[in-house]
Amino acid sequence: MSIALIIPDRKLDDLQYRLQQALPQTRIEIWPELYDPAEVEFAVVWRQPHGCLNGLVNLKAIQCFGAGVDSILSDPTLPDLPISRIVDPALTAAMIGYLDGVMSYYRLQLDMFSRQQQQSLWRPKSPRKLSRITILGLGELGSAVASHFCQQGYQLAGWARSGKSLQDIQCFAGDEQLHHAVAAADVIICLLPLTPSTENLLGRDFFQALKPGAIFINVARGAIVDDTALLAALDHGPLGAACLDVFRQEPLPPASPLWQHPAVLITPHVSAVTNVATVVSQIAENYRRAQQGTGLLNPVDLVRGY
Amino acid sequence: MSIALIIPDRKLDDLQYRLQQALPQTRIEIWPELYDPAEVEFAVVWRQPHGCLNGLVNLKAIQCFGAGVDSILSDPTLPDLPISRIVDPALTAAMIGYLDGVMSYYRLQLDMFSRQQQQSLWRPKSPRKLSRITILGLGELGSAVASHFCQQGYQLAGWARSGKSLQDIQCFAGDEQLHHAVAAADVIICLLPLTPSTENLLGRDFFQALKPGAIFINVARGAIVDDTALLAALDHGPLGAACLDVFRQEPLPPASPLWQHPAVLITPHVSAVTNVATVVSQIAENYRRAQQGTGLLNPVDLVRGY
Repeated sequence: MSIALIIPDRKLDDLQYRLQQALPQTRIEIWPELYDPAEVEFAVVWRQPHGCLNGLVNLKAIQCFGAGVDSILSDPTLPDLPISRIVDPALTAAMIGYLDGVMSYYRLQLDMFSRQQQQSLWRPKSPRKLSRITILGLGELGSAVASHFCQQGYQLAGWARSGKSLQDIQCFAGDEQLHHAVAAADVIICLLPLTPSTENLLGRDFFQALKPGAIFINVARGAIVDDTALLAALDHGPLGAACLDVFRQEPLPPASPLWQHPAVLITPHVSAVTNVATVVSQIAENYRRAQQGTGLLNPVDLVRGY
Repeated sequence: MSIALIIPDRKLDDLQYRLQQALPQTRIEIWPELYDPAEVEFAVVWRQPHGCLNGLVNLKAIQCFGAGVDSILSDPTLPDLPISRIVDPALTAAMIGYLDGVMSYYRLQLDMFSRQQQQSLWRPKSPRKLSRITILGLGELGSAVASHFCQQGYQLAGWARSGKSLQDIQCFAGDEQLHHAVAAADVIICLLPLTPSTENLLGRDFFQALKPGAIFINVARGAIVDDTALLAALDHGPLGAACLDVFRQEPLPPASPLWQHPAVLITPHVSAVTNVATVVSQIAENYRRAQQGTGLLNPVDLVRGY
């Protein structure tokens, strides 16, 4: 019996080594080099080539190697099996650290000072006043981020597809409240899951509902945003700046107009990378549960899509 | 009797209005438009033209409109009078906010990602590990900044001309310990006062004593640093990056090679700007003390130069 690691384009030595330490009796294999596909009972998966799970006839469960399962669910040939995703305090802490840094970057006007530096221009300016943040998506990460910034003294609003109730956070729900949720925000942080109902959700009407000068931060999935609408809102208002860590196509193609837009800060999907050391124990535990046929940790609801 | 505001190149309406509210019986005048120079008893001063205080024959005290008095003391004709400087929790909080943001900027590799963005390059990288900070200068601001980062979990060292003792901070003193103080630091933050003994203190030998890849942040005064040595240390090692908020000449001249150096982040002296609203009460109190001939708040030691 074995575990297959199906994570293309990533060095997997460390994950393989640590999982082997946690499960010394189990063969840990790196796809596509499998000893016998019929022996694979459990797969750790990230952006798998569509169809590759079908040959694993004795597969019992799928462990997504990240918080967002959209790249797994997009496989039309996906076998009907329990799926678990990563929920990790270290991942949440990394996301909060990234967003703290990006908030400071804009508060200190480092975007503007960097542009002025390119032109050797000296134009002092006071810090930006950023007091209202709206978080789109109030799942594990979204609600943790919201309460973090709430503790920092910001005024928080949040929006989710379904109604939520969180302390000290003004919660909005459903399509009809999306524009209300962001109308007063100085900063909008997207932490939505990518599902058929959030794909292209943030388009022209959304950006036109923002406050003049608002800052948009996407740390969820690129396909939630209509890039053409985002660029138009930067060029003609009301959007003031955008920090994008995720893109419809990654790596972001060199021809994308996002790269050279002066009001866009691009980071190459680094906001919260799964930490091998901290997630090995939950993957090993899910493997044991899959063998025993008991419920997985952090199960994915296939109807909701997250 | 009057108070003269001698702060060239700055709009002073707000300061004048607030001081007038605090001292309704006193004339608050903006230099050089003085009703009668002989009536001026107290001067609020920042970068005064040399000699301009000599005509104020009844001046009793000088209030520096900032934390650093170097630009006042550099006047060779300065009258021999008590001088006070600003010590303000809001100034300290602004400095800590600036440094927090700059630390996050480097931790998240935003310097590298910005350069890569200019070339449409997608190269993910984990956050920089920055664990050791050395603060140069352990006065009001330096010691507050050191204990702030200590509370954030960094390992702190500090250096000052004279020996200091601060909780949880490894303190170094005197010229002979300067290189020891910075040898292990990932980040060096300069908060020294500018005095004859700190001018050009940070030169070739200093930069050569740094750890490879170290980051240097100057939020004190430009003239403490030998820019040629700093640029050489960036180009040939060991210095990894520099964030400069202060310069020997401000505004930084367009011809300075600092502007276009890829490893330099320039901000136009914004790290901690005196907040008119929060400092009016200490200025008014010092005016009353000067009239009564009692000791000023936050007096400057003219022998030390700060």
